Amino acid sequence: MPRIDVSELQVERQKFKPILPKILKNGAEYIKVVKCKFIEPISNQSQYEIQRIFKNTYGFPEIVFRKGINIAIKRKTVKVAVVFSGGQAPGGHNVICGLFDGLKKVNKKNILIGYIGGLSGILKNEFKVISERTLRNYRNTGGFDFITSGRTKIETSEQFNLIKEEFLRNKVDALVIVGGDDSNTNAAVIAEYFAKEDLNKYVVGVPKTIDGDLKNKYIETSFGFDTATKIYAELVGNICKDVNSSRKYWHFIRLMGRSASHVVLEVAFKTHPNIVLIGEEILSKNMTLSKVIKTVTDIIVKRSQLGKNFGVVLIPEGIIEFIPEMRELLVNINNVIGNNTKIISEIYSIDQKIEFICSKISSKLSNLMNSLPFDIASQLISDRDPHGNIRLSLIETEKFLINMVHAKLLKLRKKGKYQYKFSPISHFFGYEGRCGIPSNFDANYAYALGYNAAILVLNGLTGYLSNIKNLTKFPKQWECCAVPLTTMMAIEKRISKNKPVIQKSMVDLQGKPFINFIKERDKWILNEDYISPGPIQYFGPSNITNMTTKTLQYEKKL
Amino acid sequence: MPRIDVSELQVERQKFKPILPKILKNGAEYIKVVKCKFIEPISNQSQYEIQRIFKNTYGFPEIVFRKGINIAIKRKTVKVAVVFSGGQAPGGHNVICGLFDGLKKVNKKNILIGYIGGLSGILKNEFKVISERTLRNYRNTGGFDFITSGRTKIETSEQFNLIKEEFLRNKVDALVIVGGDDSNTNAAVIAEYFAKEDLNKYVVGVPKTIDGDLKNKYIETSFGFDTATKIYAELVGNICKDVNSSRKYWHFIRLMGRSASHVVLEVAFKTHPNIVLIGEEILSKNMTLSKVIKTVTDIIVKRSQLGKNFGVVLIPEGIIEFIPEMRELLVNINNVIGNNTKIISEIYSIDQKIEFICSKISSKLSNLMNSLPFDIASQLISDRDPHGNIRLSLIETEKFLINMVHAKLLKLRKKGKYQYKFSPISHFFGYEGRCGIPSNFDANYAYALGYNAAILVLNGLTGYLSNIKNLTKFPKQWECCAVPLTTMMAIEKRISKNKPVIQKSMVDLQGKPFINFIKERDKWILNEDYISPGPIQYFGPSNITNMTTKTLQYEKKL
Repeated sequence: MPRIDVSELQVERQKFKPILPKILKNGAEYIKVVKCKFIEPISNQSQYEIQRIFKNTYGFPEIVFRKGINIAIKRKTVKVAVVFSGGQAPGGHNVICGLFDGLKKVNKKNILIGYIGGLSGILKNEFKVISERTLRNYRNTGGFDFITSGRTKIETSEQFNLIKEEFLRNKVDALVIVGGDDSNTNAAVIAEYFAKEDLNKYVVGVPKTIDGDLKNKYIETSFGFDTATKIYAELVGNICKDVNSSRKYWHFIRLMGRSASHVVLEVAFKTHPNIVLIGEEILSKNMTLSKVIKTVTDIIVKRSQLGKNFGVVLIPEGIIEFIPEMRELLVNINNVIGNNTKIISEIYSIDQKIEFICSKISSKLSNLMNSLPFDIASQLISDRDPHGNIRLSLIETEKFLINMVHAKLLKLRKKGKYQYKFSPISHFFGYEGRCGIPSNFDANYAYALGYNAAILVLNGLTGYLSNIKNLTKFPKQWECCAVPLTTMMAIEKRISKNKPVIQKSMVDLQGKPFINFIKERDKWILNEDYISPGPIQYFGPSNITNMTTKTLQYEKKL
Repeated sequence: MPRIDVSELQVERQKFKPILPKILKNGAEYIKVVKCKFIEPISNQSQYEIQRIFKNTYGFPEIVFRKGINIAIKRKTVKVAVVFSGGQAPGGHNVICGLFDGLKKVNKKNILIGYIGGLSGILKNEFKVISERTLRNYRNTGGFDFITSGRTKIETSEQFNLIKEEFLRNKVDALVIVGGDDSNTNAAVIAEYFAKEDLNKYVVGVPKTIDGDLKNKYIETSFGFDTATKIYAELVGNICKDVNSSRKYWHFIRLMGRSASHVVLEVAFKTHPNIVLIGEEILSKNMTLSKVIKTVTDIIVKRSQLGKNFGVVLIPEGIIEFIPEMRELLVNINNVIGNNTKIISEIYSIDQKIEFICSKISSKLSNLMNSLPFDIASQLISDRDPHGNIRLSLIETEKFLINMVHAKLLKLRKKGKYQYKFSPISHFFGYEGRCGIPSNFDANYAYALGYNAAILVLNGLTGYLSNIKNLTKFPKQWECCAVPLTTMMAIEKRISKNKPVIQKSMVDLQGKPFINFIKERDKWILNEDYISPGPIQYFGPSNITNMTTKTLQYEKKL
């Protein structure tokens, strides 16, 4: 592992002591694990199928913690492994710190190892033993560079065998996977495999993603969402100020966050841009591409009539999946790619790949494909990730929208309905926010999630997601628990195959955040209600340093 | 003017009281202005010409302040106007606050007005009277939205007449122009005009630019550079962490800063990226485009041989002006545009514009032009700003370099010398940093510059740049003075015409910052010495909140 150079701020942050929820404060020895009743699955579809696949880990009860004495746990020595899986999120290192401290608190002989580069580290026997000395420099820092991450998916029997062999040889008792929906699906699958094989080895997941889409009626939010949206809001807020100062540009800003529009919604609450596109709303209103363009163009024309040839547009990374004709096109491309992986991989030129795919889809869709700019078309057929997801971050939707809007404005100009200069500037913010130094909220939350995961594996629980509730209250009042992973699963089609996956959460159009957004957004369109939230503050007044997301605040408000 | 919505952080920042240099603390009444000796011009070229153009304002002495009694100033009532000119820089509002407080401290009846939208506000008689009530919400905030900015250049006799009429009618005694090199050139020209016309009206400039290129042996730095480079460094540092966590991408990051590479150099000091291109070095080594590409590609290949298919490249916005053949091309395009403005403006299609320009330059240059990707070629012939500068921010050099590097790697791959996947991601950071909430340094510095400008105009000085020295010391120890604007001027060719302009400062290859950079950069190439400085902190330990740029620290170190 490379040595780490730390900035002055990181040095100061290393002194920060995360605040633990009250129940965790004295460690596993003083916690009684209580199995509650079986809880309702998130989805009511395909539960029979899920139960069939997860014979040994389906139907587990929810877990809560109560004060109590648990001396047996002190005598046992365990070896736990941790991996990061998928994209970075601020707070990852604090999960490891919490896990490490939780394991060591109860028994100094407990061991934590970290597999390098995600789950593939297990397959390749690449790991490091974690000590206070090596971990110290990473406390409250951003990034996953301590043990790095990966996107390997475990699905073949060869892979399962390798994991089993590695864990038996290395005497690993439990695995903690820090990941998003796909990685926690993997956690569930590995937990089931260990249970089926009767290996007495446990798997626990930790909810990580900046996208904010790993939440549901049991999980309030994932760690990383708070910090990442604060970083994006800093940038968007600065651009709003810039727009309002120079008053001559239209900034089209796409924000990372995969399909769901949670990131855009949260950043909109913090900055009040003029136009905010929400994928889920576009889908529910069945808005065609030309309707979306018209909505944006109408506002540009209206502002221009007020002498305001400037503004800010927020675009979710995943918008393209929500526009009906584009959605249909993507589903069809996915199917063609899924059914012709080998053939397509052997076609060298992008033109020919597009041509091949067009030959396998309806003429309506093939016409649509051919009407798209070449850049966009080639981005649509680019490689999928190992979970079958299209890599939305690579599709420059913001530029595509600018081109479409520009063309529409030119038409209006010819008709004499628009006479100003349209000066657009495009941005995509994503990588900038995944490795920020975690906010106080994420530093506390991720640390508690890791500590909580330690309690779970020490108690021999498997197939669970580490879970913390009551997050809008002070950390001391947070409630610690665990939700069975299979409770959150449903069957989904991924590259033409049905797979059990943990359900991603989309923006709920009946939910409080969206309803509040609807109430506010009309004011933002023609005015300059811009807000500049500024950079994350770690020191200073508590209303600035400790507040979590507006989304969570709205959701928890009665 | 639009109403202002403020974030929680801005509310807290409004409570921040900038620390004044000791000499300014009691206001103009207790300051004696001392005229020092005539100081050497920055450039020793074309001084005769400068003297000829600035007959009434050339050869002024430097000004310093000493403790003393100046009661006369208290009895006089003045009306001062302020304008923002050019791009935004963090701290602009604090210049106005310092100016306002400095004027009011000595006489409550003094009036400050702000012309709207830059110098064009004077021509259009658009202004607002500034009061504590209207100013309060803008103290220590980013942006120029309080009175907005513009890029109008004053050069025609009609414009000069309009300014004269406006100032006579509106009874304005003095004008403070907050701007960069071109805007301060304008300040010098207007000061000369007022002096020539014997109007008894004064003009003072304030050094503003995030680019860091308005500095010289008299001026230590401009306000805004500190905050902007801290914001860019936050983003680059986060990306470095991301790169080191996922270990699969090469990020090519272009940073705003016009021709000079100061911004890139400062951000490099703070983040330690693998490859840092410095325009001035490329020029001095006479590196051709293919040599630049080879330098980058060689490092990518070397890192790849170590299993490191990832890294970070920093690219100055202005790099293209420093590559010899590109420089020659740009100079020639500028001349063709300058000599054929009307003809070119009447050519509708970009293809035909390129064709026309190619017909007017040598066949070598026309071949180069035709070898460039269409995007880049069309960006090269895009409109110049009113000062004749090419709008470098619009040229996507980072993508151009990626394409060239990619092509080179493909060739190496065919020869079996490179066998890995090259996954590049491009970024351009500029607008994100121009309107950030000013750092403590910029909040103090800009406030002091404004306060200092108030002392200058109250004392009837004209043709000066407000100047503060000793900036690496505590604000109380800062020294206040003023440098004649004409001292910093030379004759330059702008769109084929010779013009007197304030000299931009390029990175000095013999200067301490660059020498320190040379010492360090080799370590960064093959290692991951990345540093994540994190976001600007306004509260907390002083080593985090009050340090200014590494550039200034190196420059001031003995």
